Amino acid sequence: MRILGIDPGLQNLGWGVIRVEGSKISHLGNGVCHGTGTALAQRLLALHDALSEVFTRFAPDEAAVEHVFVNRDGAGTLKLGQARGVALLVPARFGLEVGEYAPNQIKKTVVGVGHADKKQIQHMVKMQLPGVQFAGPDAADALAVAICHARHAGSSLGKLMRAQA
Amino acid sequence: MRILGIDPGLQNLGWGVIRVEGSKISHLGNGVCHGTGTALAQRLLALHDALSEVFTRFAPDEAAVEHVFVNRDGAGTLKLGQARGVALLVPARFGLEVGEYAPNQIKKTVVGVGHADKKQIQHMVKMQLPGVQFAGPDAADALAVAICHARHAGSSLGKLMRAQA
Repeated sequence: MRILGIDPGLQNLGWGVIRVEGSKISHLGNGVCHGTGTALAQRLLALHDALSEVFTRFAPDEAAVEHVFVNRDGAGTLKLGQARGVALLVPARFGLEVGEYAPNQIKKTVVGVGHADKKQIQHMVKMQLPGVQFAGPDAADALAVAICHARHAGSSLGKLMRAQA
Repeated sequence: MRILGIDPGLQNLGWGVIRVEGSKISHLGNGVCHGTGTALAQRLLALHDALSEVFTRFAPDEAAVEHVFVNRDGAGTLKLGQARGVALLVPARFGLEVGEYAPNQIKKTVVGVGHADKKQIQHMVKMQLPGVQFAGPDAADALAVAICHARHAGSSLGKLMRAQA
């Protein structure tokens, strides 16, 4: 089974694909889609098209998206929300249900604690996906989302990992 | 020329299409798309598909979307942002540039003052589109967005209206 994780953002949308076989996970690919252009609609279209290409290329069976952090900066939240709308829409257009996970749930699953920093997450993702090279920090986060989904979505791996926990 | 106006929302996304011929505008259609479903991704897909149908049916030449109001309710802003992402993406997927207008700009254009209430807006939209029946308040707002775009987008009508103003 292939799982695609997405870390949404308007400028940089990270994605990462892992393969789950029994109790093993392995890295298939990761990258960053850029919302290039001047008009907002064009930027969202660029994200949509780039993310759709990832789906066509890797044909994931399941997808998961990180919950975004809502803060007091309304304009920033709105911008991120628009990008996240596209990040949720594309998997749905390919017929997939989309898992959603909060940042601290992802950290707890991948690192073991809910308040891990970026370096710890990247270290643990590398431990679990030997040889992986990150296309960028957002791509590393997306791989963490995919690993989190593998553990929580009722896959055989998830069941095994939960049994061991 | 046909102009499609959109009033974005996750539960109710209003749309309205007008025809612009020289200095005349007329009503072609209006309605409300519903983001039905339980999962957020499915709700966004429902909006995407319903709005895409409107594009296929009316083949608008230009599109415009209302700026949403950003407030201190971060969760609400995020939800609306996700719906607005889809509202901006669909016209872009059909190759259209998307005009964006702030609520007070729309009110000022349609009613003449920036702080008009819903009833005043609906009254003035009815005056300018005789015989129109609104599918709902969001559809009326969407027609106001379309009228605003007609006046501001450099169409012959917009130029005429500005010349008279």
